[in-house]
Amino acid sequence: MADMKVNGTPTRAIWRVEAQPVVEIIDQTALPHHYHTLKLATLEDAAHAIRSMQVRGAPLIGATAAYGVALAMQRQGDDATLTAAVATLGATRPTAVNLHWALARIEAHLRPLPAAARSDAAWREAAAIADEDVAQNRGIGQHGLDLFRALAEKRGRLDIMTHCNAGWLATVDHGTALSPVYAAFEAGIDVRVWVSETRPRNQGLLTAWELKQHGVPHTVIADNAAGLLLMRGEVDAVIVGADRIAANGDVANKVGTYLKALAAKEAGVPFYVAAPRSTLDFACPSGEAIPIEEREGDELRVVNGRHESGEDGSIRQLPADEAVANPAFDVTPSRFVTAIITERGHCRPEALRSLYPEEDHG
Amino acid sequence: MADMKVNGTPTRAIWRVEAQPVVEIIDQTALPHHYHTLKLATLEDAAHAIRSMQVRGAPLIGATAAYGVALAMQRQGDDATLTAAVATLGATRPTAVNLHWALARIEAHLRPLPAAARSDAAWREAAAIADEDVAQNRGIGQHGLDLFRALAEKRGRLDIMTHCNAGWLATVDHGTALSPVYAAFEAGIDVRVWVSETRPRNQGLLTAWELKQHGVPHTVIADNAAGLLLMRGEVDAVIVGADRIAANGDVANKVGTYLKALAAKEAGVPFYVAAPRSTLDFACPSGEAIPIEEREGDELRVVNGRHESGEDGSIRQLPADEAVANPAFDVTPSRFVTAIITERGHCRPEALRSLYPEEDHG
Repeated sequence: MADMKVNGTPTRAIWRVEAQPVVEIIDQTALPHHYHTLKLATLEDAAHAIRSMQVRGAPLIGATAAYGVALAMQRQGDDATLTAAVATLGATRPTAVNLHWALARIEAHLRPLPAAARSDAAWREAAAIADEDVAQNRGIGQHGLDLFRALAEKRGRLDIMTHCNAGWLATVDHGTALSPVYAAFEAGIDVRVWVSETRPRNQGLLTAWELKQHGVPHTVIADNAAGLLLMRGEVDAVIVGADRIAANGDVANKVGTYLKALAAKEAGVPFYVAAPRSTLDFACPSGEAIPIEEREGDELRVVNGRHESGEDGSIRQLPADEAVANPAFDVTPSRFVTAIITERGHCRPEALRSLYPEEDHG
Repeated sequence: MADMKVNGTPTRAIWRVEAQPVVEIIDQTALPHHYHTLKLATLEDAAHAIRSMQVRGAPLIGATAAYGVALAMQRQGDDATLTAAVATLGATRPTAVNLHWALARIEAHLRPLPAAARSDAAWREAAAIADEDVAQNRGIGQHGLDLFRALAEKRGRLDIMTHCNAGWLATVDHGTALSPVYAAFEAGIDVRVWVSETRPRNQGLLTAWELKQHGVPHTVIADNAAGLLLMRGEVDAVIVGADRIAANGDVANKVGTYLKALAAKEAGVPFYVAAPRSTLDFACPSGEAIPIEEREGDELRVVNGRHESGEDGSIRQLPADEAVANPAFDVTPSRFVTAIITERGHCRPEALRSLYPEEDHG
């Protein structure tokens, strides 16, 4: 059922425990050092998992929210419980639109049903959302592979730069930005990945971890090194995921994405954004309308050093009394995006609507 | 004698211990948590201090190298010792040209002298190099203040972004990029500083530390946040130091500088580079000819987390077996630099030679 693997065993990033009203996730805060799973048995478990970033990545947040509604409906299927569940889950994190997309979809599906029927229906709909995510990401992989093949033919190898983690850990399976990377690797292309550390929470190390599980060669860099590598011609393409893509093609993604897009443009290197339909927000006109989450300053404080002092000459930790600003996302204007890759294909960002002609775009 | 302060006491970043053949430095690897000084008694002490980054910052590396030659000459003033001292110190770090500038200057001064006279002459010349650095940085402060005043008048306050540490800790006193910031603060301008963490070694925390010593308001950010803040209009100017400026105005500085320059240009925000004459390399035609130091991958590994695991949900450390690339500098092409500020004034980067008309520029 799953295509991606941990220690050789096929595993999704979220799944329902067989025949039980329980959801299981990989605790991503413990990676890359400890691999363990967590069981979510209540709405609050699911909300906490999203808030604390035990699960993260826009598509996975969406799937977790859908399962969270199922956990709530399992206990009680009345209107008030449904409304409260959607409100609680919807308030966990502001930027990734997949959260609201998944909640709106499951709520619209459940609302017309009698209370007694909602639990089973919620589990089925959450499973459908998860399965569709997998299928869509597989599609992204193939469409991205088309783009990658053309690049690889020029040089006989392919050096890809990514930011944060938009691999299978950020989705239900396969990943968004990494799906074409895995597809290229499986197709025998000599692909290597520049993995950007992604301060302050170092999700790049999740990317390194999952690439290692699949044997894909990669090198970790400080976020600051991206510009030099692009300038030196050591990168054939940059590919990232997204937390929300506005109707005009502006892309909100993990903070630091925009800097890579600027450097890619300057170097004449293609900058790709890979995301499923659930990340597209046609109701949002442009990046300026996307809310940017400001997270706790402690994210910079506690991860800055293993020790308090710099005894070994390489450790320097931020004191507790320093003021910190910690925006979690930034916006890359569409003019820096070479193409957006979805399950439907790829297109210039301003042509995004043309991939979904059947939808009413107002 | 010193203008900058630690706990209210005037202090330089390097000085000769009164009437002794010993140099004293602040151990910058222990900051910001522990303030202590180290005594350098031998050439090897000085070379180690530079290599291990107990002292860092291009002008301070230059001054330390000059004092290192004095320490060598103190023991023995013969030609072979002088040659070996210059070679040892010159091989410590490749990018900052101030190192080679200081060594060439002191060697040219000592070489014609009899061996017995070299020790006293070396101490005098090293002191002159240090004193001139202080005077030049004071000049940079005043010329930079002229630029800052114009910006501050527009908004009634001044939000400055910097990268790495180019404050007094990076020089003998006053700093380069921070010298105009201190001058603005003393002139009563409402100046605040965005301090970029500066991975992998977090020298931004040195900047935060010295700004705090002088009461200058500041906020620490992840390097990744710079683009968003510039896009949002929260920055009036970016100012950085330099490790080497080529004849055409291309600037080598701490890795990540280039990304800030790109974002500043895109936002229409001025990007200033502050550096004394000793950082200018008129013999180097362009940034492509500047050697970029590649440092140990362990710099990314050991500072990534306090604990091995992510138990508290915010710590994620790079495993020891992950491959790392760790370039310490990057090159910002001159077209992204609004002005270079030296002790002589400020100019467009391509006009750099015009500030030094008396020099033979070939």
